Amino acid sequence: MDRLEKQMQFILEVDKLKNIVRQNYLLDGSRREDDADHSWHLALMCVILSEYANEEIDLMKTMTMVLIHDIVEIDAGDTYAYDTKGNESKRERERKAADRIFNLLPEDQAKMMRSLWDEFEEGKTAEAKFAATLDRLQPYLLNSGSDGKSWREHKVTLSQLMKRNEVTPLGSRVLWDYQKNLIQKDLEKGNLIKD
Amino acid sequence: MDRLEKQMQFILEVDKLKNIVRQNYLLDGSRREDDADHSWHLALMCVILSEYANEEIDLMKTMTMVLIHDIVEIDAGDTYAYDTKGNESKRERERKAADRIFNLLPEDQAKMMRSLWDEFEEGKTAEAKFAATLDRLQPYLLNSGSDGKSWREHKVTLSQLMKRNEVTPLGSRVLWDYQKNLIQKDLEKGNLIKD
Repeated sequence: MDRLEKQMQFILEVDKLKNIVRQNYLLDGSRREDDADHSWHLALMCVILSEYANEEIDLMKTMTMVLIHDIVEIDAGDTYAYDTKGNESKRERERKAADRIFNLLPEDQAKMMRSLWDEFEEGKTAEAKFAATLDRLQPYLLNSGSDGKSWREHKVTLSQLMKRNEVTPLGSRVLWDYQKNLIQKDLEKGNLIKD
Repeated sequence: MDRLEKQMQFILEVDKLKNIVRQNYLLDGSRREDDADHSWHLALMCVILSEYANEEIDLMKTMTMVLIHDIVEIDAGDTYAYDTKGNESKRERERKAADRIFNLLPEDQAKMMRSLWDEFEEGKTAEAKFAATLDRLQPYLLNSGSDGKSWREHKVTLSQLMKRNEVTPLGSRVLWDYQKNLIQKDLEKGNLIKD
């Protein structure tokens, strides 16, 4: 049964996402988070927080989008948000990864997944914008809750953070307002550098 | 904003699921899998494999169910599938955990999540049956693909495995047929003990 064999190959291949380690720590600071942990958290946050999306969203589409948005990092690796040089070559590395990994699936599902990933990357639809909001908010919550452990290691400044979060209000003004309050507190605590 | 504060408390609390370690290893055998990794994998498998469900399922409901099905283990811990004694007290420990954790959410969402978790535990609806199928198949794939590393450690026998998988065909006969072929191979390789 060729179709099911292909689906299983994809399912086994994406197990590698659990070995892609991000810069941010878990909330208790015990270890860095892996990409599968992060994607699980985003999918659950979709369910809990969708009421705050600026525009109406297709919830299942957004959940699927966040479940697969980092799969390309299996080949391309995690590029730290504040790594300028890494981010220059990121797009090309990730596109090649998408070509390989999604095409393990049967053609219809490969197209569906690739199209969702492209949509996330382009960031234009209501779903992509809300997914991007969560993708910024989630590590913010963990960084903030672990006393800026990863920010301190990388000497992250307010202006770097604000640039990284330019897209956050596009998906949800309510969640951005919430995050702005946290940013104020993180500056006061010295978790983030005021520049 | 009380509602959003409650939602955020839940979102932060469930970060602990990433520290709950399961018995099975990742496919490459490098480390044991955590519960958030496992739940992410199940949600993605829902999307890819739903066409094989015996009965028609509400896909988003099933995805949400698998995203939250192990959250009770934050308090109750992971009870190994073949730990007879642990499984006797499991239900009560998990029910207490559900009372605490889901009730961090605003009332409407707490009810929705609790009801989904109860439905999963009861295993009667099409969604709960398919979720249970994936919950058995996913660790099977990882155990089988890592040469039975965790089975060998625990000296797992065929009859234990078959008992554990009694529910698997109830959600998907096609996936159970696929798994039965793998079981045959795992017996031949000595990954599982024939008893």
